[in-house]
Amino acid sequence: MSHDDGTVTPAASGQPEPSPALDRLYEDFARNSTAPLWTQTNDLMPLVPTPAAIPFVWQWRELVDIARRAGDLVPVGRGGERRAIGLANPGLAPTAYATPTLWCAIQWLGPYETAPEHRHAQNAFRFVVEGEGVWTVVNGDPVRMSRGDLLLTPGWNFHGHHNDTDSPMAWIDGLDVPFAHDMDLGFFEFGSERVTDEASPPFSRSERLWAHPGLTPLSAPGPQHSTPIAAYRWEHTDAALREQLALEDEGHPATVDQGHAAVRYTNPTNGGDVLPTIRCEFHRLRAGARTPTRREVGSSVWQVFDGSGTVVLDGERRDLVKGDLFVLPSWTAWSLEAEAEFDLFRFSDAPIVERLHFQRVHLPDTDGRVPGPRA
Amino acid sequence: MSHDDGTVTPAASGQPEPSPALDRLYEDFARNSTAPLWTQTNDLMPLVPTPAAIPFVWQWRELVDIARRAGDLVPVGRGGERRAIGLANPGLAPTAYATPTLWCAIQWLGPYETAPEHRHAQNAFRFVVEGEGVWTVVNGDPVRMSRGDLLLTPGWNFHGHHNDTDSPMAWIDGLDVPFAHDMDLGFFEFGSERVTDEASPPFSRSERLWAHPGLTPLSAPGPQHSTPIAAYRWEHTDAALREQLALEDEGHPATVDQGHAAVRYTNPTNGGDVLPTIRCEFHRLRAGARTPTRREVGSSVWQVFDGSGTVVLDGERRDLVKGDLFVLPSWTAWSLEAEAEFDLFRFSDAPIVERLHFQRVHLPDTDGRVPGPRA
Amino acid sequence: MSHDDGTVTPAASGQPEPSPALDRLYEDFARNSTAPLWTQTNDLMPLVPTPAAIPFVWQWRELVDIARRAGDLVPVGRGGERRAIGLANPGLAPTAYATPTLWCAIQWLGPYETAPEHRHAQNAFRFVVEGEGVWTVVNGDPVRMSRGDLLLTPGWNFHGHHNDTDSPMAWIDGLDVPFAHDMDLGFFEFGSERVTDEASPPFSRSERLWAHPGLTPLSAPGPQHSTPIAAYRWEHTDAALREQLALEDEGHPATVDQGHAAVRYTNPTNGGDVLPTIRCEFHRLRAGARTPTRREVGSSVWQVFDGSGTVVLDGERRDLVKGDLFVLPSWTAWSLEAEAEFDLFRFSDAPIVERLHFQRVHLPDTDGRVPGPRA
Amino acid sequence: MSHDDGTVTPAASGQPEPSPALDRLYEDFARNSTAPLWTQTNDLMPLVPTPAAIPFVWQWRELVDIARRAGDLVPVGRGGERRAIGLANPGLAPTAYATPTLWCAIQWLGPYETAPEHRHAQNAFRFVVEGEGVWTVVNGDPVRMSRGDLLLTPGWNFHGHHNDTDSPMAWIDGLDVPFAHDMDLGFFEFGSERVTDEASPPFSRSERLWAHPGLTPLSAPGPQHSTPIAAYRWEHTDAALREQLALEDEGHPATVDQGHAAVRYTNPTNGGDVLPTIRCEFHRLRAGARTPTRREVGSSVWQVFDGSGTVVLDGERRDLVKGDLFVLPSWTAWSLEAEAEFDLFRFSDAPIVERLHFQRVHLPDTDGRVPGPRA
Repeated sequence: MSHDDGTVTPAASGQPEPSPALDRLYEDFARNSTAPLWTQTNDLMPLVPTPAAIPFVWQWRELVDIARRAGDLVPVGRGGERRAIGLANPGLAPTAYATPTLWCAIQWLGPYETAPEHRHAQNAFRFVVEGEGVWTVVNGDPVRMSRGDLLLTPGWNFHGHHNDTDSPMAWIDGLDVPFAHDMDLGFFEFGSERVTDEASPPFSRSERLWAHPGLTPLSAPGPQHSTPIAAYRWEHTDAALREQLALEDEGHPATVDQGHAAVRYTNPTNGGDVLPTIRCEFHRLRAGARTPTRREVGSSVWQVFDGSGTVVLDGERRDLVKGDLFVLPSWTAWSLEAEAEFDLFRFSDAPIVERLHFQRVHLPDTDGRVPGPRA
Repeated sequence: MSHDDGTVTPAASGQPEPSPALDRLYEDFARNSTAPLWTQTNDLMPLVPTPAAIPFVWQWRELVDIARRAGDLVPVGRGGERRAIGLANPGLAPTAYATPTLWCAIQWLGPYETAPEHRHAQNAFRFVVEGEGVWTVVNGDPVRMSRGDLLLTPGWNFHGHHNDTDSPMAWIDGLDVPFAHDMDLGFFEFGSERVTDEASPPFSRSERLWAHPGLTPLSAPGPQHSTPIAAYRWEHTDAALREQLALEDEGHPATVDQGHAAVRYTNPTNGGDVLPTIRCEFHRLRAGARTPTRREVGSSVWQVFDGSGTVVLDGERRDLVKGDLFVLPSWTAWSLEAEAEFDLFRFSDAPIVERLHFQRVHLPDTDGRVPGPRA
Repeated sequence: MSHDDGTVTPAASGQPEPSPALDRLYEDFARNSTAPLWTQTNDLMPLVPTPAAIPFVWQWRELVDIARRAGDLVPVGRGGERRAIGLANPGLAPTAYATPTLWCAIQWLGPYETAPEHRHAQNAFRFVVEGEGVWTVVNGDPVRMSRGDLLLTPGWNFHGHHNDTDSPMAWIDGLDVPFAHDMDLGFFEFGSERVTDEASPPFSRSERLWAHPGLTPLSAPGPQHSTPIAAYRWEHTDAALREQLALEDEGHPATVDQGHAAVRYTNPTNGGDVLPTIRCEFHRLRAGARTPTRREVGSSVWQVFDGSGTVVLDGERRDLVKGDLFVLPSWTAWSLEAEAEFDLFRFSDAPIVERLHFQRVHLPDTDGRVPGPRA
Repeated sequence: MSHDDGTVTPAASGQPEPSPALDRLYEDFARNSTAPLWTQTNDLMPLVPTPAAIPFVWQWRELVDIARRAGDLVPVGRGGERRAIGLANPGLAPTAYATPTLWCAIQWLGPYETAPEHRHAQNAFRFVVEGEGVWTVVNGDPVRMSRGDLLLTPGWNFHGHHNDTDSPMAWIDGLDVPFAHDMDLGFFEFGSERVTDEASPPFSRSERLWAHPGLTPLSAPGPQHSTPIAAYRWEHTDAALREQLALEDEGHPATVDQGHAAVRYTNPTNGGDVLPTIRCEFHRLRAGARTPTRREVGSSVWQVFDGSGTVVLDGERRDLVKGDLFVLPSWTAWSLEAEAEFDLFRFSDAPIVERLHFQRVHLPDTDGRVPGPRA
């Protein structure tokens, strides 16, 4: 096994001499449903993460095309539940996982269609890169979906979608389905075949109660483990990013890197992430800006919201335009470069990584070393 | 000692027989800087809180009058530091404390005057019931003060005020000065005699960075023990209250009591109170609404922001109009009744009470009993 | 798809009509590295967890036999690192995972042998069902390993083992290797080929500093995310269980169920689990006692420490004797019955489940329903 | 006002010119129950804490003498409740407070006497410097009191004491009575006139359930805000201190300062302080050791448990022997010097200070400056 620093792991030196007795022992391992660690240490416990998932880019143009065709051919209703087409990381075949923890799909809803209500322990959100006209109904509260909005459906809340217009609409769904599936954490329950409230108000009741900056209803119980805000609206996200760049221009600390503004969507009841397993962020790079190269523990999915630019993934450059999605497996070296002003939505499994204390960051251009965990 | 339930504490039975030996013993207690508990148990450890502070009302009209006269006679500058006139609870004389924990003052700043910069460990806020034209500068960040705004100055932040107009302005200051003084927690440091930034922008840098609903700058460190938002603006408070009442009208849970909307100002980094020692709230009652009678552990100060109504304090009715302030000592029975739509700002020492686990609430109309602590 | 309650999921009704256009669409899904959700909802998001891992029992007698043979044939040293033989859940082949999150192995160390030092982000412990004579050295602190002891090696601490006697010794290792591997969280670093301190003291320095009930060194920093205690000794565990049963005899609440005493090993700096990802418990059933049947979200591994009894796994009875291990996948119905007084060690991924808010418990004998998440 | 650094606060320059109009204004301040800040800033908000409480020493010999005389003259029973004689800080006269937050008393119980049961919101503990034979009964659980033991009675637990022998016994009580009284937080309820369980077991049920190092009963609910352990026994405290000094001898970090071992008594359910308002510690200095001089925010009371030495309080040396008590007001410079091995118990209001984020420490010999709050 060869390492970053050019040395070779002395794996061979730790291995037993082949012999008939050893063959019999290895047979008995299998017969007893056991397996030796010494033959697999390097694979099971590598020096740094060696993801099966690969960095990968999906083009929005193509996704929309196949989603539209699915809209023509595939009904949406009880049983199939959703006309959603998942991004299947080629490294994780045959699953349709984007990363080991995250599911990401494009969902398509035709004119006046309804995706029936159900609920599941898995946490979900939707992000709208274009279009409007659909309301998602979360526990009976209708939530308008418009370009740039982030819509939340925390675990075990009933939800359905209905298109209130004569145009189709597409958006992306993000869930912790792979995590919940592989860890055996999921529950599912069918609900109403129609959404329970077909109104199409401009703002959900959850927003009217909760989406006021720094203000909490006195009638609320204490901290909740998921956000009570069902929709984070584009106008607020855009304003927050614009102000960060303006503050940078005025000489004040506000941005993550030079020319790189970013916000985290947060749960107002505790200041933490919107979902127990998923972090959502929005990034804006000025035209011409580029981020330093980073490696991080944990995986994420990005979607270009506007503008154009390039992502460099383990050294490979990929140009991106509006709607394009890419996956960043754990410990992949990445940087972004903006051609025009470049807006990107990101979601990641950072809450899993951080709550279980596995977080690490590496800036290879800075020191070239793999750092230890943050103290 | 007589109790709520009509019984009498058998204090007498626990007392020693008078004798010359007892007299000598009591003299020796004093000589040795000691004192017996048995003669003072009832005072030191009463059945329920028996505050020295009394419920009290100050009329805004009179406060403004004396503040204006102070504006003519008293300079504002280094040494005196602030032209602030504290509400002195008659039960706490000779101090100028509003309650055992809270200081509340009306501050007056004349045309183009400056109150010099300083900082202190004590936590402070300002609330504006009327007027505009002053900027408070917090760690170099100028913060506009307008009607209905709550301005925060957490402990150990440098701050000064300057009036950018040719009109005087008055507002109220709230601090934990009594608590910090009596517990010996305070530190103080003089700063610049002029404010360090005389600009008068519409919004502070802290708001531009932080006052977006549910959005946190990615560049921020983790949770902070005081809010990073320097100003909570009236337009947001008003909208939040209006929506709660509208939701109530539509049949959804949102208000505290029937016809009684309320918000808590919160620290977006952790969802908790804006200051470690002070909770700030805003209440709105519909015309004709009244709250159930409540007793709570801990003290608070209220100011009428708009409308008119009545507060009932331990059974005594007091009519209130815009600007009037009243104090609610611990365990005082209180209720509010709105004549016209009735808006009130409140601040309290609830974070002290709750972080140290002394909270209790009693609704005397409901059960007449003194409940035990919430489990 | 048939459910617990006899109904059938109407999956078929949600599926598209076969057609050449549909075939072409499905081909294009694959060509674009995507996959439809509607064909896999039932598998990906089942009504209740449907683990690939199966309930399974390993007999200690057989494990010790193959470990001893490995001791004769397989060197322990740099590269292979450990003479550890993992329990390979047949449902998770070809991996050698006990559950989707947990690794469990029997490790064998011959007379005077040394397992070299290394460190990894994965969290580890050892539990000793029999034997003595090995010291594990954690960050330079030698820790005696004796029957009934739980030894901790939180992530990124250097550790090695050396046998200070002329007898071999076997014990079990537990790690979060499957979780860290599948989520791409692991880091690994080689250390000294010899242990860095070959002393064999009766108690580690960590115990001398930390293992005093309710006492924390004043020199300690604040809360730590893993326990600072390197060894939890049998004498304390045994005493705690004995007292619980004695308290039950005296009529006081102390046990989990009638005749069922249990302790959780905890981190004294925060009262939580010993490791961020792994919970460790010890259970004792009186002779004749049986537990109610339970289902829980998350997986665990149990080892019989002493006595004998039966585990019922999804209705199948398996008799167990000292050293036997069994695996409990998520949502498996389980109960224990004690023949003689029955002592069992358990470790689980409960901290992962609980920190991410997926916990649920079901007592099928009580109500037969799948309950919703705990509020 | 003169400062540490020799400068003088320009208070005079901030004051108004005397005039008849100013006199009338000041009269109107009083008439309106208000008071100006500018005349009292220096007192209310000093540069550093200027406690009314003074550093003070009480001699155990004298306290025991007056307690014994009280034992002869004063009954213990319903009404007086306790034969407790409080340490009255001369700076806080006429109260019998040791510090602004803490009460400390010597309590005396004659042969076979009973102090009746009651409960109060105030938190309490007892510490035993000498003697034995009394059991304190906490919520029906009898707790033996012996030399060196710390006994806890968190708020709102019924408790009484009974002497099971024919010898009197004295101990110290510590409570947050001044804090609860001045903040109006206290509730009180009478209970049984006899203790509800007159047994005299060697260990309380709480210890049998909870006092095992790092082991939590699985039947326990989650974190509790006060410790569930009713007694912290001397044998554990002594062992923990002895090990710290032994580790220091062996070259390992363990002690607070050179030759100065110390433990904090902690709540095993969350790793925090034993009571929400009171921290308890035990300190041991080697013969000849001395601590660096420190100033800290918040107040504490110390009792010599064994050995002899000197405390330096704001530069004044006071020799101490077994049982002597002294009070350390906020920001008092203090250091300890051990003649013989010197054991001291300490309790403080540090949880109040820290939970409300007022903590600061100053080591004057190190840098001479008043540091800002810890970030």
